[in-house]
Amino acid sequence: MSIDAVFAELTSFLGDRVSRSKSDLEQHGGSETHFPTILPDLVVWPESTDEVSRILRICHKSRIPVIAFGAGTSLEGHTTPLNGGVSLDLSRMNRLKMADPGDMLAVVEAGLTREDLNSELRATGLFFPVDPGANATIGGMASTRASGTTTVRYGSMRDNVLGLTVVLADGRVIKTGSRAAKSASGYDLTALFIGAEGTLGIITELTLRLHGTPEAISAGVCAFPDLASAVATVQQVIQMGVPMARIEFLDADSTRAVNDYAGISLPLCPHLLVEFHGSDSAVEEAAECFGEIARDFGASGYESATRTEDRNRLWKIRHNAFYAVTALRPGANALVTDICVPISKLAQAVEETRAEIAESGLPGPILGHVGDGNFHAILLIEKDNDAEMATAKALAERMSQRALALGGTITGEHGIGIGKLGLMQEEHGDGWTVMGEIKRALDPTGILNPGKLVRQN
Amino acid sequence: MSIDAVFAELTSFLGDRVSRSKSDLEQHGGSETHFPTILPDLVVWPESTDEVSRILRICHKSRIPVIAFGAGTSLEGHTTPLNGGVSLDLSRMNRLKMADPGDMLAVVEAGLTREDLNSELRATGLFFPVDPGANATIGGMASTRASGTTTVRYGSMRDNVLGLTVVLADGRVIKTGSRAAKSASGYDLTALFIGAEGTLGIITELTLRLHGTPEAISAGVCAFPDLASAVATVQQVIQMGVPMARIEFLDADSTRAVNDYAGISLPLCPHLLVEFHGSDSAVEEAAECFGEIARDFGASGYESATRTEDRNRLWKIRHNAFYAVTALRPGANALVTDICVPISKLAQAVEETRAEIAESGLPGPILGHVGDGNFHAILLIEKDNDAEMATAKALAERMSQRALALGGTITGEHGIGIGKLGLMQEEHGDGWTVMGEIKRALDPTGILNPGKLVRQN
Repeated sequence: MSIDAVFAELTSFLGDRVSRSKSDLEQHGGSETHFPTILPDLVVWPESTDEVSRILRICHKSRIPVIAFGAGTSLEGHTTPLNGGVSLDLSRMNRLKMADPGDMLAVVEAGLTREDLNSELRATGLFFPVDPGANATIGGMASTRASGTTTVRYGSMRDNVLGLTVVLADGRVIKTGSRAAKSASGYDLTALFIGAEGTLGIITELTLRLHGTPEAISAGVCAFPDLASAVATVQQVIQMGVPMARIEFLDADSTRAVNDYAGISLPLCPHLLVEFHGSDSAVEEAAECFGEIARDFGASGYESATRTEDRNRLWKIRHNAFYAVTALRPGANALVTDICVPISKLAQAVEETRAEIAESGLPGPILGHVGDGNFHAILLIEKDNDAEMATAKALAERMSQRALALGGTITGEHGIGIGKLGLMQEEHGDGWTVMGEIKRALDPTGILNPGKLVRQN
Repeated sequence: MSIDAVFAELTSFLGDRVSRSKSDLEQHGGSETHFPTILPDLVVWPESTDEVSRILRICHKSRIPVIAFGAGTSLEGHTTPLNGGVSLDLSRMNRLKMADPGDMLAVVEAGLTREDLNSELRATGLFFPVDPGANATIGGMASTRASGTTTVRYGSMRDNVLGLTVVLADGRVIKTGSRAAKSASGYDLTALFIGAEGTLGIITELTLRLHGTPEAISAGVCAFPDLASAVATVQQVIQMGVPMARIEFLDADSTRAVNDYAGISLPLCPHLLVEFHGSDSAVEEAAECFGEIARDFGASGYESATRTEDRNRLWKIRHNAFYAVTALRPGANALVTDICVPISKLAQAVEETRAEIAESGLPGPILGHVGDGNFHAILLIEKDNDAEMATAKALAERMSQRALALGGTITGEHGIGIGKLGLMQEEHGDGWTVMGEIKRALDPTGILNPGKLVRQN
C-alpha cells in the first residue's frame, strides 16, 4: 500500500487527526538538540489503545515505519523518523485514568506529562517522583528509562512502573505486570519495554507506583573549595546511608551560568544542592549529618531551607540550569553528554572530563545527578561551526569510552536514540546482537522506530 | 550425537565432574515439594563460565536439554529435567570474586549461597538483603526473581542485581548491565534473564548491589484480635510511609505451629513480626509509630527488641515456620501456594483463602510477606492421598485466580516452574505468546530447561 493509500485508510477512522501539513511534519521531524530535521510522511493523533492498534495493523501490513512521539523533549534524536513513515503523536492520550491512594498507584495514558500528572495528584497527598527536568510525557519517560534529580531516593522509571499496555508491531495489544508490588511470573516484559525507545512496541498506558508526599522536606546548597571535595562528600554520604532525596552537582562554570541567569550570587566554585524527605526529625537528622560531612570536606555556607518558597527557588535554579548554560553562548547549539559511573570513579571521571573540555576550548559546564554517579557536560557549539561540532562529538565519545573503562555506562538517563548508536557494540558486545534478536522476534518487519537502538542489517 | 558420545566429550575436559551415578541423578531429579522425580541423563559440575560455554556448545549441537541447578531449594519443580538431558550443577562456582565497599557492590559466581555470601561480607559492614528463607544460591535466586522478608525495604532480586554474565544456548557469553547505579543503554537484558528460570541462558556471574549494615535494628512481634485488624495495620503503616525493613504475618494456625515447634507460647491469634533498620532515633521513631497504629487496631503486647539475640530468636521462628507447619502433620507432603495482590485487596484475599481452606478440611496455615501483599498457604496433604492432592491443587488454582481477579499475580516470589505453567495464559494472555517469541529467538532449538515457563509447541 502506498503512503497515499495509508493516508486515506487512516483518515477513514481518524478524520482530521491525520496530517501531512508542513508545520506538523516539521514539528515531528526535529529535535531539541543538534540532530538534523527529517520529516515523517504523516502525523497521527490517536485517542485510544484501540486506535493505536488499528494504526499499527495498517502500517504493519504496508511496512510503513511508525515512530512514537510524546512531548519531543528527548535529547538524542529518539523521535527522528529516519526513514519517514508515521509519527504517532500520543499527546491526546493524556488522561489520568485512575489514582488509587489505597494502593499508592495510578493508571495513566502514555501522553500525560509528568507535571500534569503531579498537578492532578496534588489533592491525594501522593506524587510521582521521577523528575528528568523536562516536562516529558510519562510514556516517553518509560521508553527512554528516564531518571533524574530524585532517583537517588525513589529510583528511575524502571523502579516506578508496575505494568504497561503495549501495542505490538502487528497491532496485538498486551498487558504486562500487575497492580501487585512484585511478581515472579514469567519474563519481565515491563522491564523489556522500558528503555526500548519505541522499537519493540508502543506503550499506550502505564500503571505507576506513587509515593506519599513527605511530612517534611528540607533542602540546601553548599559551596566546595574544589570538585574533589564535593564528590568526596557525595561518596561519603551515600556510604553512610544518609537518606538523600536529591543530591545535585554544579561545577564552577555551571554556577556562573545560573548566577547570570537567575540574578543570584553564589560563589564561583563547585556546589552541591541537596534535599531530604521524611519525618521532621528524620529530615533534621539527615540534614545535620550531611552538613557535618560537607564541612569535613571544606564546604561552607550550608543552610537548610524548609520553607516551600525557598526550596522552590533552589530547584528552579537547578531545573533552569540547561537554559542558563546555553545562555552563556547565545545562539549556540548544545551537545548534552550523559554518562554514569560507579560512585568510586566519579571524581576521576568528572576531573578528566573537565580537563579535556578545558583543553578543547569549548564552553562545557558540568552538572549532574551525582548521587547516582550520573553527570552531564553541556558542550556549546557555535551555529554551523563544523570544526567545533567535530570537537564536541569527539569529546562526547571519549566521555562514553571513559565511562565504560571505569565500569560505567554510556548513558545514565538520556538513552541511545541516534546519538549513541555507534557506541552500543563497545558497551554490550554480543549483548547488542541479542538485542537485535529480540527486536526481530517482536518486530520482524522492522517498522517500529527503524534505525534506532539495534544494529541495522 | 548420542548421550553416550556427549558423556565422552564432556568427560574429556571435565574429568570426574561428569556423573551418571544413580544417586547423583536422583539428587538432581527430585524437588523439595510434591513434584515427581524425573532423572537427568547426566550431571555436570563446571567450575568456570568458559566450561559452561563449552558444555552449552556441545549440548546445542547435539540438541541435548540443559537444566541449571543451584541449591535445589525451589518450590515449583524448576530444576526437574522433564525431557532428561544435562543437569548443570553450579555449586562449584561459589566464589565471592570481589566485594567493593566503596561502590557497595559485589561480584559473585552463581553457585554461591546467600548465607555464605553474607558470612563472607560480614567484615565489610555490608550485606546482601534478599532473603527468601531457604539458603538458595544467588544464581537460583536471580533465575526465580526471588524476594522475601526484607523486600518491603530493600526490594527483590530485580532491584539488587546490577549486571550478569550469561551463557546463551549456543555457548556465546554476554555481560549485561554495568557497575553504575543506573543506565538507559538499550534493552534491559539484566531484567530479562532475572526470573527467566534458566530458559533463556545460564547465569554464571552476578554483580550485586550491597547495603550498609544498619546502625540500629529493632524488631518486635504483636498479637491481633483477628486477621482483618492485622492486615489493616499493614496497610496503614505502608500508607503512612513508616519505614519497615520487615513486616511478616502469621495466622492463628501458623502461630500454633511455631509455638509447638519452638516451645514458645504466643497467644493463638494472628501476629505481625516487624523489624526496623536505621539510625537509633529513626528506628525508635518508626517502632513507636508502628506500635501506635497496631494498638489503634486492637493489637496487644508489642515490645521492641533491640538486642541481637532477641531478634535472632524472633526471625528464627519465622524462618522455621515452614518446618513448624509441616510438623503439624508428620509425613505429609506440602503444597506451598504463593500469590501477591495489591495491598488494598490483601484482607479480602487472605480472608477468602482462609474460608476456602477451612471448608476443604485440609490443614493450611497462612503466612507471608504482607508488606508486599504476598502470602502463602502451606497445604498439608497426606502421603499418597490423591483425593487430598486434588483438593489442594484446586485450592491453589483458585487462589491464583483470585489473585488475578484482584489485580495481582499468580506468584509473588516462587516462580512458575512446573506448578504454575497452566496459569500463564490466564495471567498474561498474548503476553505469554510474546514470551514464547523471545524464547525462540534466544534458544531456537529449545534446549534450555525445556517444558518450563513458555508455551510448548
